[in-house]
Amino acid sequence: MKISGRNKLQATVKEVVKGAVMAKVVMDYKGSELVAAITVDSVEDLDLKPGDNVTALVKATEMMVLK
Amino acid sequence: MKISGRNKLQATVKEVVKGAVMAKVVMDYKGSELVAAITVDSVEDLDLKPGDNVTALVKATEMMVLK
Amino acid sequence: MKISGRNKLQATVKEVVKGAVMAKVVMDYKGSELVAAITVDSVEDLDLKPGDNVTALVKATEMMVLK
Amino acid sequence: MKISGRNKLQATVKEVVKGAVMAKVVMDYKGSELVAAITVDSVEDLDLKPGDNVTALVKATEMMVLK
Amino acid sequence: MKISGRNKLQATVKEVVKGAVMAKVVMDYKGSELVAAITVDSVEDLDLKPGDNVTALVKATEMMVLK
Amino acid sequence: MKISGRNKLQATVKEVVKGAVMAKVVMDYKGSELVAAITVDSVEDLDLKPGDNVTALVKATEMMVLK
Repeated sequence: MKISGRNKLQATVKEVVKGAVMAKVVMDYKGSELVAAITVDSVEDLDLKPGDNVTALVKATEMMVLK
Repeated sequence: MKISGRNKLQATVKEVVKGAVMAKVVMDYKGSELVAAITVDSVEDLDLKPGDNVTALVKATEMMVLK
Repeated sequence: MKISGRNKLQATVKEVVKGAVMAKVVMDYKGSELVAAITVDSVEDLDLKPGDNVTALVKATEMMVLK
Repeated sequence: MKISGRNKLQATVKEVVKGAVMAKVVMDYKGSELVAAITVDSVEDLDLKPGDNVTALVKATEMMVLK
Repeated sequence: MKISGRNKLQATVKEVVKGAVMAKVVMDYKGSELVAAITVDSVEDLDLKPGDNVTALVKATEMMVLK
Repeated sequence: MKISGRNKLQATVKEVVKGAVMAKVVMDYKGSELVAAITVDSVEDLDLKPGDNVTALVKATEMMVLK
């Protein structure tokens, strides 16, 4: 299955912090830190935990550029 | 000045394609390709062109995780 | 592979309109019309065309509620 | 009043879970589950509760496609 | 009808530029310029044109802060 | 440094509410209220507190229009 979202980064989960509704997933991508705020339901559905090999996905329309 | 957006990826512009309203900015980030869909106005305001050193910015709430 | 995005809607492509950078994908989802604005690159990568069975994906943080 | 957001699904609220800042609103749309992550302020402003007839709203630029 | 989106800015349309799929709507909001990138379909559905009194809507999860 | 995000509103922080993962930042822009849902990490990184002069940033693709 292919996904229209253009940005896919192979990362490793470093930390998962759960709140009541939202969770923070901190990932490492080649030495840089990525942070995703997703629902706790998703964290549990994917059984996300430190050490997991994952893909961070971002739609092209959600990416800005600074220069 | 600091930005609340958690994901800041140091990248290099590879290609800029302009439409009437939206533009595609293709970047290289540590060997992975990033694609941002931003307005043509932004491309012109930042004078984006191949070879530019830029930062791709993504809010944590816009990042998904696949596993 | 599982995706953290919570909303996955099984739909059928009705129409694809391509611009220079962005494309419009009109879908039917249980009798309701869905419209996704994605990049032309994605349309070509997924070879999207009328009649295709697809899944529309929406992150929970991107969904609003009206009452 | 008309809204530019292209995706509007008539749904029924099944569950509301409140955190400190964000809330999860689970809805039913013709047998499929929809999940919106909105602020607790919005839940209280709209007085959202199970059984409510609502409309789930998604901007076209926020919808991805999987195939 | 109430909308969960927290940011509702009373603005006036200054300019509308249509591409093949996306359109740019430039607005004035208390002396500041706002720019929305929405579908051409939405521009036509709402019959947006310079001088129109509109409300710019932004979900709280889509707003960043710089300091 | 320039940012591609088209909407920048000079505002003043009125209130900051922190949850476990997400925080709500309420701002005043010329008498109107703005609300941003950002991570608690960002609130701490920017040391956001009432009275701060900040800029609310919104990407053009995240802004809808009502008429």
